[in-house]
Amino acid sequence: MALTPLWFLERAATVHPTRTAVVHGSVHYTWEQTYQRCRRLASALSRRNIGAGSTVAIIAPNVPALYEAHFGVPMAGAVLNTVNIRLNASTIAFLLGHSKSAILMVDQEFFSLAENALKILAENDNHYNPPLLIVISDKSCRPESLKDALGKGAIEYDKFLESGDPEFAWKPPEDEWQSIALGYTSGTTASPKGVTAKAVYSAIANQGVTHFCAAPVVLNTIVNAPKEETILPLPRVVHVNTAGAAPPPSLLFAMSEKGFHVTHTYGLSETYGPSTVCAWKPEWDLLPPIEQARLRARQGVRYTGLEGLDVVDPKTMKPVAADGKAMGEIVMRGNLVMKGYLKNPEANKEAFANGWFHSGDLAVKHPDGYIEIKDRNKDIIISGGENISSLEVENVLYTHPAVYEVSVVAREDELWGESPCAFVTLKPGTEKSNEGRLAEDIIKFCRSKMPAYWVPKSVVFGPLPKTATGKIQKHVLRAKAREMGPVKKSKL
Amino acid sequence: MALTPLWFLERAATVHPTRTAVVHGSVHYTWEQTYQRCRRLASALSRRNIGAGSTVAIIAPNVPALYEAHFGVPMAGAVLNTVNIRLNASTIAFLLGHSKSAILMVDQEFFSLAENALKILAENDNHYNPPLLIVISDKSCRPESLKDALGKGAIEYDKFLESGDPEFAWKPPEDEWQSIALGYTSGTTASPKGVTAKAVYSAIANQGVTHFCAAPVVLNTIVNAPKEETILPLPRVVHVNTAGAAPPPSLLFAMSEKGFHVTHTYGLSETYGPSTVCAWKPEWDLLPPIEQARLRARQGVRYTGLEGLDVVDPKTMKPVAADGKAMGEIVMRGNLVMKGYLKNPEANKEAFANGWFHSGDLAVKHPDGYIEIKDRNKDIIISGGENISSLEVENVLYTHPAVYEVSVVAREDELWGESPCAFVTLKPGTEKSNEGRLAEDIIKFCRSKMPAYWVPKSVVFGPLPKTATGKIQKHVLRAKAREMGPVKKSKL
Repeated sequence: MALTPLWFLERAATVHPTRTAVVHGSVHYTWEQTYQRCRRLASALSRRNIGAGSTVAIIAPNVPALYEAHFGVPMAGAVLNTVNIRLNASTIAFLLGHSKSAILMVDQEFFSLAENALKILAENDNHYNPPLLIVISDKSCRPESLKDALGKGAIEYDKFLESGDPEFAWKPPEDEWQSIALGYTSGTTASPKGVTAKAVYSAIANQGVTHFCAAPVVLNTIVNAPKEETILPLPRVVHVNTAGAAPPPSLLFAMSEKGFHVTHTYGLSETYGPSTVCAWKPEWDLLPPIEQARLRARQGVRYTGLEGLDVVDPKTMKPVAADGKAMGEIVMRGNLVMKGYLKNPEANKEAFANGWFHSGDLAVKHPDGYIEIKDRNKDIIISGGENISSLEVENVLYTHPAVYEVSVVAREDELWGESPCAFVTLKPGTEKSNEGRLAEDIIKFCRSKMPAYWVPKSVVFGPLPKTATGKIQKHVLRAKAREMGPVKKSKL
Repeated sequence: MALTPLWFLERAATVHPTRTAVVHGSVHYTWEQTYQRCRRLASALSRRNIGAGSTVAIIAPNVPALYEAHFGVPMAGAVLNTVNIRLNASTIAFLLGHSKSAILMVDQEFFSLAENALKILAENDNHYNPPLLIVISDKSCRPESLKDALGKGAIEYDKFLESGDPEFAWKPPEDEWQSIALGYTSGTTASPKGVTAKAVYSAIANQGVTHFCAAPVVLNTIVNAPKEETILPLPRVVHVNTAGAAPPPSLLFAMSEKGFHVTHTYGLSETYGPSTVCAWKPEWDLLPPIEQARLRARQGVRYTGLEGLDVVDPKTMKPVAADGKAMGEIVMRGNLVMKGYLKNPEANKEAFANGWFHSGDLAVKHPDGYIEIKDRNKDIIISGGENISSLEVENVLYTHPAVYEVSVVAREDELWGESPCAFVTLKPGTEKSNEGRLAEDIIKFCRSKMPAYWVPKSVVFGPLPKTATGKIQKHVLRAKAREMGPVKKSKL
């Protein structure tokens, strides 16, 4: 029988029908209600002939409809394409065209964005068949925008659900290779909305939160929050799963000081998400906290669901020595790895060369078998023929008391070919007039903590460009470094 | 990539190489050692051309070699056939012939049993090719028996391992339908060895046991143990998984009084083992203990790994009403269900009729979706046209203070066709001379606690016949009841 995550919902609804499944503002749904809503969605889609071979796109923040789409769409046999709400209209137009979505579900808040995207798509493609629009009403938005959407022919999501059967007899996929989701990885210039530490602490206090997942950028906000926005000590143990970027040890240390239990996982959109975990060993509990943070900053070992993980020499495909020094590329294989890139055989050939999925991340393997990322393939800095891990330089910079966020990229260097250039955001409250003195201080700090050739030759202050998922965009910083021109020989 | 449990061992050895994996007397192996021993076994088998298509049988108690065979044999691509050590020589001869085992691994203690089985097999089949014998040495046995085995050409297990490569590059199965194990379900007249409650408590005290699995018959020994053999209160929470027979609520109540946390699971050899679990709900913690025991005695809901579970009318295959009353057959489907019966297409056709596996167990479904077994299909008693669940009669009998074990079967009845007949083992220390008075007392007790037509008309004292896995053999008791002749009309 083909394995599918859809059964988890049916089981939750059977075993825990009256327990709360989804909370959104004042809306609470039980598992039974959620299962019925998902079956209504699947049924309503089926009645419109949406099934095997169809794609349903959704542009929505983390509202109940987004959750329901993850089950309801594949229960109808169709593929779900979740569109990042931070993308701009032309990128969305490209995605909707590429995925050939037959239905577009859109949160009221993003209806005009969706409209603009569809307009661009129609202008660029004469044969384009516009999708059926379903608008998800949102009480926190202006009522006019809903009225506007309905006036333009969109169907209200809850009305659409009403047209479906809550007892719909959905069928599990016949074949495990039948796709249920289509995702596009991030790569945008739009800025993510800021999370405020206050909202996190308020959810912990009011909603009884015990577990959450957040990228290191969010953890950074939490540890740097002003005292009046925090609740310390925490009312209970709060477990945090972090992934999305390598968390600096200093950040993990600060989180543990505040009483959070952080588990560090690592993966890519192509490998479902987390495919390694820094599995904690009880004997590490006895180590000094800063040493614990250093161990926790490693990406760790494969999840039980991933069959193969290794760090290999990209040329020979042989595993590197487990000495914590030899660098190689992280490769994975097994059931957590994606089926492939849609309509892109060339990319698939490259990504799956030699029977492994190639992550593009460079790492070492420690004697205990735990892997640790040193850099993205393309982020490595080559100075005087020596490789410098931009990540390791950043980890040191994060321990400087004035540094809030930092990113290090290669800058052309007349003498060494390349040398590290640090882009730094200072902690709130730092005087702008102090920047000159601070740049010197940071370089001096680095000299005392790393090999001379690692030390950034230039320090640039200002906000860091980020992707929609909160990742720092090194390509933008590299372009800035290019604009700065090469480091002169005299600077040595 | 085909899913296989073999990766779990590789992961344990990678992540927890120095942690204890297996303890047997004074022998301790770490996960790394265990993985190496399994790879040695796989390698040594491969070197003898044992691989895809071969079967390796093992007759051994719960020693490290038995554990290692579960990984080493499928790592070589072969199928493992574990033979119950309580079987007699002629049954073993049948199994070895049926499975065409190329290798027979046998614990020193059972070498002469294996020899006898092979002798029977050779006498019955002229074309029979005897398997290679590997003897597992056992320090607790007489050294002569090992010498004897080696003299007869058997290879010592540890010597066999030495011939294998500890770094053997085993290959996972290419296909999930590639068999890794062949099991024969129980059905024997040999008696199981008694477990003493003392050994259980001693392991809890000395080995730091936190979890164990045991059939209700073992739990019965634990709760009825004399005070001097027990440790109360327990030094820590001890979690127990029970399955193999329906545990009477009175037994679950007594276990919880002693501080054990019992989880009740249910399944068949054909469904991997546990395929349902009586998932505990926090709100039940507030109920009176006896009510908790009643809820816990239900077989519950499907495991997440089982895709389908239902109670259906055997004729229409329609689900019965979830009213706790309508009885039907338990059916299952999904990834926990076996591939099929070996060389038995007729049995497969019957067991898998209508796309479901038919358990042969009769149950009701409660309004909360939890299922509860009422009887085996063939154990139901039909009295005056009414169905009587022998299990429900037994559950009441178990609450009688003098009853240690009980089994209820149908006895022919001149008036009602059939009526219940109870076979009872009394608690240790009960005077034999009291049996007559006790039989009357038990019947009186039943009259006050169940419908009149459920009350056993006959009570027979004595030890109960059991299978090698500790299940009471109702067919033996039914034969005894037949020998007793029908219940006379006058007895009414």
